[in-house]
Amino acid sequence: MAIEQVDAYLDSHREVFEEQLKTLLRIPSISAQPAHNDDTLRAATFVRDDLVAMGCEAELVPTKGHPIIYAERHDAPGGPTLLIYGHYDVQPPEPLEPWLSPPFEPTVRDGNIYARGATDDKGQMLTHLKAIEAWLKTAGSLPVNVKVLIEGEEEVGGAGLEAFVAEHRKRLACDYAVISDTSQFAPGIPAITYGLKGLSYFELKIQGAKTDLHSGTFGGAVANPCNALAAILASLKGADGRILIPGFYDAVRPLEDWERAAFAKLPFSESEFQASVGAPELVGEAGYSTLERKWARPTCDVNGLYGGYQGPGPKTVLPARAGAKLSFRLVPDQDPKTISQLFRAHVERVCPPGVTCEVIEYHGAPAVRVNVDTPGVRAAVRAIEAGFGTPPVFIREGGSIPVVGLLKEQLGVDTLLLGWGQSDDNLHGPNEKFSLADFHRGIKTSAHLLAELARA
Amino acid sequence: MAIEQVDAYLDSHREVFEEQLKTLLRIPSISAQPAHNDDTLRAATFVRDDLVAMGCEAELVPTKGHPIIYAERHDAPGGPTLLIYGHYDVQPPEPLEPWLSPPFEPTVRDGNIYARGATDDKGQMLTHLKAIEAWLKTAGSLPVNVKVLIEGEEEVGGAGLEAFVAEHRKRLACDYAVISDTSQFAPGIPAITYGLKGLSYFELKIQGAKTDLHSGTFGGAVANPCNALAAILASLKGADGRILIPGFYDAVRPLEDWERAAFAKLPFSESEFQASVGAPELVGEAGYSTLERKWARPTCDVNGLYGGYQGPGPKTVLPARAGAKLSFRLVPDQDPKTISQLFRAHVERVCPPGVTCEVIEYHGAPAVRVNVDTPGVRAAVRAIEAGFGTPPVFIREGGSIPVVGLLKEQLGVDTLLLGWGQSDDNLHGPNEKFSLADFHRGIKTSAHLLAELARA
Repeated sequence: MAIEQVDAYLDSHREVFEEQLKTLLRIPSISAQPAHNDDTLRAATFVRDDLVAMGCEAELVPTKGHPIIYAERHDAPGGPTLLIYGHYDVQPPEPLEPWLSPPFEPTVRDGNIYARGATDDKGQMLTHLKAIEAWLKTAGSLPVNVKVLIEGEEEVGGAGLEAFVAEHRKRLACDYAVISDTSQFAPGIPAITYGLKGLSYFELKIQGAKTDLHSGTFGGAVANPCNALAAILASLKGADGRILIPGFYDAVRPLEDWERAAFAKLPFSESEFQASVGAPELVGEAGYSTLERKWARPTCDVNGLYGGYQGPGPKTVLPARAGAKLSFRLVPDQDPKTISQLFRAHVERVCPPGVTCEVIEYHGAPAVRVNVDTPGVRAAVRAIEAGFGTPPVFIREGGSIPVVGLLKEQLGVDTLLLGWGQSDDNLHGPNEKFSLADFHRGIKTSAHLLAELARA
Repeated sequence: MAIEQVDAYLDSHREVFEEQLKTLLRIPSISAQPAHNDDTLRAATFVRDDLVAMGCEAELVPTKGHPIIYAERHDAPGGPTLLIYGHYDVQPPEPLEPWLSPPFEPTVRDGNIYARGATDDKGQMLTHLKAIEAWLKTAGSLPVNVKVLIEGEEEVGGAGLEAFVAEHRKRLACDYAVISDTSQFAPGIPAITYGLKGLSYFELKIQGAKTDLHSGTFGGAVANPCNALAAILASLKGADGRILIPGFYDAVRPLEDWERAAFAKLPFSESEFQASVGAPELVGEAGYSTLERKWARPTCDVNGLYGGYQGPGPKTVLPARAGAKLSFRLVPDQDPKTISQLFRAHVERVCPPGVTCEVIEYHGAPAVRVNVDTPGVRAAVRAIEAGFGTPPVFIREGGSIPVVGLLKEQLGVDTLLLGWGQSDDNLHGPNEKFSLADFHRGIKTSAHLLAELARA
């Protein structure tokens, strides 16, 4: 049988696949940092070349930012079509100091590969490419039609993918979409993620005097942008974890009873979770469990702070400027545009005298919830059983994958979110990792998904 | 007459003095930055060599930090002794971007010399050295006994000077002390500063999880140190500009009626001051004029903020750490030790759940107020009339000069604070400057001060 040949191919290519993953992880394709534009292009070229080598006609599609890789195979005329999405760009690795091995020198420790992008998303993305390769190198064709769409601006919310999808709606038409850019519920408990939070990301810039001043000579007369910034940021959230922007919760869809019951049944230990992150205690919005807060309640986090003197020792300066990067994680049915308006109005209202406030908007995306009672989901359940030896649980996730909303909006397709990562993979943090065992299980699941969708 | 020869020497050495000032300003003696330790030593050596060249036995005294320069001349047996204090270290020049000319390449524009340290304190300190030189090169001796004490840790509050003064109380015994490290009230309005604010400087470090985390996956469950820092900083000051730490104002001595009347008579334009700093509006504690707030009311300023991602573009990180440098300017009779205890207790009280707060203490100094009705002050008034052609006004100042308190405590001497700077000299900020005309007026005033003190 074809699937048995595929499985045998996967078994015999484990080392090759790992070496290819390492090669890709060595490329610092940091989409946020223009100094790495050449590297980002190098990663795109690697992905394109790999698809070509396995027998796909793949092209590098230029965008205003980093290029998209697109490939198609129509091996199942009249059969279903699966769109596979992934991204080859990565988050900045900073701060570098806490990394135990350099972020772009992939290093295996205890069965995990450590590198920026290991799990998010180079390692997970590659599982689908290797599944395609296994089919093409054994059966010579794929059991379903496949469209591969890999972008390089996921971590910066670039506009390239959105423009490409909007322009090529017919070309991208599909019955199913799959993305592996999420996590399992826990080691040995694979999951299908049916909900994602949305995101509104801002930078807030505060300007006081035109230049830095002596804090003794001018303090008490000239407003301090750092103090002003602290006052504004402190006004966003109450001690009970509730966000204080008027109207912020108006569109929030309450958790359904079955979800609260299902979350409560999952084998989740608050104390183990707390120990894994090393926090003095867990906090958050009153009245909700930790999983509910993580997965299904909106949040507000300051992602970065800067202002005044940051060097060694004291400096008695009254800074001219300060700023913060901050973001809100949204849940259904909050609209990023509305949140942006509410946030801007709030900042205008609370901006203290003596400074000016500027709000810069980065990317935004609405939250997503998909129907779990579909043939595609049932096929994914069977594929995961084949790849992982156990059926998945159904979970939500606090992260945002804007493309899921985009595919729904433009192509009308719900996305299968099949994640091979773990919640302690430190994606976006230092020492990002990915389990090599899960890398191979993911490849096998993806290979089986192609077969399962053919008979869904 | 001796003083006429001195004046003639000063007139004929203006260019030489300016070149010497430039040479000293080229040395980046940034005491806060260990990478510049060699430069700091180079500046100390320059000062020592200059004193030796003019005929003083000067020595470089090692400390645990940067060295002290000490010199004495006993030219007036039985006559009064003047202690001259200054410092050769400078503030860090960062941020570098706003500097119109490099901070350590002194550049003259419109009669001002621009460089880090121009006014604080290399330029002002040098005026007294050049006055000594003029007497020694013309009369061959000084009209009073003089002790010169120049340190290199003023900007970092190093312990070296305090230890030296405590150890050498007899050697340093004097009748008067003079420091030029303050400003005139305005161009053409020289001033004697009779009050200085004190200082309590802290760094506040917040730690949440043990490592940076993904703000989507962990937001809502794990405390954010940046948000926590903002909440703590915002709790320090009310919208009315009052500091909210319980007990903070308990020891504050109210402004006296004569001071409020004298301040109100000074030619001070709020709108010109506001325009000079380029602030959208002036702010501060309700119920006090701008001069009263700047000079005689305690303040709280955040001097630096850091946390999370500060690079270009967005990064959805939940940071593990954040921090702030912040300081309180104190007035009589606030005690830095008490303020430190109150601040620590306040931080402990308001530190939000899920994070730990650490308070690091840098230097502290009490505020100072000296008696203005003394022979020394009257001599200084006459010297300023000679040097600037007009008598001084009496003002206070928001900056801190801890050595003034030290000299009072250890030597029992009140300090004459004769400042040649201007309030827009940008000391501690970019484009620090010093008027070359005031540089020469300062030298002349210092030369006359030696004569006036001899007959005080």
